[in-house]
Amino acid sequence: MRNFKMLLEYEGTRYQGWQRQESTENTIQGKLEALLSKMCGHKVEVQGSGRTDAGVHARGQVANAHMDTDMTAEEILAYMNRYLPQDIGVLSVEEVSDRFHSRLLAKEKIYCYQVINSSLPHIFDRRYAYAYPAPLDIEACRRAASFLVGTHDFAAFTSAKKGKKSTVRTIEEIRIEKEKDIIRFYFRGDGFLFHMVRILTGTLLEVGAGKRKPEEMEALLESGRRELAGALAPAVGLTLLEVRY
Amino acid sequence: MRNFKMLLEYEGTRYQGWQRQESTENTIQGKLEALLSKMCGHKVEVQGSGRTDAGVHARGQVANAHMDTDMTAEEILAYMNRYLPQDIGVLSVEEVSDRFHSRLLAKEKIYCYQVINSSLPHIFDRRYAYAYPAPLDIEACRRAASFLVGTHDFAAFTSAKKGKKSTVRTIEEIRIEKEKDIIRFYFRGDGFLFHMVRILTGTLLEVGAGKRKPEEMEALLESGRRELAGALAPAVGLTLLEVRY
Repeated sequence: MRNFKMLLEYEGTRYQGWQRQESTENTIQGKLEALLSKMCGHKVEVQGSGRTDAGVHARGQVANAHMDTDMTAEEILAYMNRYLPQDIGVLSVEEVSDRFHSRLLAKEKIYCYQVINSSLPHIFDRRYAYAYPAPLDIEACRRAASFLVGTHDFAAFTSAKKGKKSTVRTIEEIRIEKEKDIIRFYFRGDGFLFHMVRILTGTLLEVGAGKRKPEEMEALLESGRRELAGALAPAVGLTLLEVRY
Repeated sequence: MRNFKMLLEYEGTRYQGWQRQESTENTIQGKLEALLSKMCGHKVEVQGSGRTDAGVHARGQVANAHMDTDMTAEEILAYMNRYLPQDIGVLSVEEVSDRFHSRLLAKEKIYCYQVINSSLPHIFDRRYAYAYPAPLDIEACRRAASFLVGTHDFAAFTSAKKGKKSTVRTIEEIRIEKEKDIIRFYFRGDGFLFHMVRILTGTLLEVGAGKRKPEEMEALLESGRRELAGALAPAVGLTLLEVRY
């Protein structure tokens, strides 16, 4: 079996997220596995760097798959782009060592959460951004973000049930940029818990709207209580930009 | 009756173009007129700066309508954005003089034709750009464009049947920019004939692909023969950017 690494982009709008599900064929992983299994004539499992939620997009998702095939990486790339739906694209395929594992070896991920901060429609951005028309104090968002950067227990910022798994993660950087009416929140870190980026964004938006103070972030982290953090920002605004190894 | 000027954006994908048609409700003008007629309680005619073809987008279409209403321009803006479909947006509404006419007074229009010049998919651009994977010589495109700029009879570059109307137009500028795999053709002129921007682009692409020489443009203009010009580039890549008065 040869091991292939793939760089993927997809528009999440139509899908029930990355992860294969028994109840629906409508997942990114499901589409990829069905196609590659057909291509190889044996069951292929596609391992992603991580799951993306229903409706979340990716510009740089990384996956790998062990396949028994004589095709070259270039031929696999062409085959996939020919038969995948229009909203899933493969940007590169390369053969890698047997030991490459897209999830276990991922060192860093970068996400972008995009907000349309306007009462006017932005119809060309509507599929990739969350419309949040209330005035936002970006400096307050940045101050709040500065408390979140670093190594913390992010239990308050995940929808995952409490269990044995650690909820400690390191956020290397949160960068907030404004370009006209579009505000982008960039998150770079060693890994993110279930819903973590969306809850972080939802909380930062509440700070920006004046509903919370930036200084509250410290106590929030310490509390570990999800119900004290902000709302889960909608999936539409979130894009996985890059996975680093 | 008061006269209102509107700045509009729309994604043309779902529509049979700008112009109202008896056979379908699915036109931009049709949607606007239906909504404003309901708002005013009388039949409203919406005059656009020009028609856009089926599938063509706009980021700065200008229209005007004479309406009998007590609503302020701001109220009309909010009403329209509340009830229009998600792929049509109103960016501004202002009351203007009775004599303002969005088509007759338009002095200049700017269009952008966007090409994905790659064999790889660009799924996030797929609704707004034409995938043309063949290698393109941008400098050859620019040389060909230099022959097209100026005041010429563009009869060879329109699908309109020959009639009494003049096919002389002035193109002030054709600018061609490349940003990674995306090539943008900007056309600025006093007005464009039916299909003119798309046939110009189709012809420039054939020059870029080496199927024609830039110098042929002169004879092509002189011939006035549509069948000698290039293919009609698909609607998906075209966006009306701006109308100047």
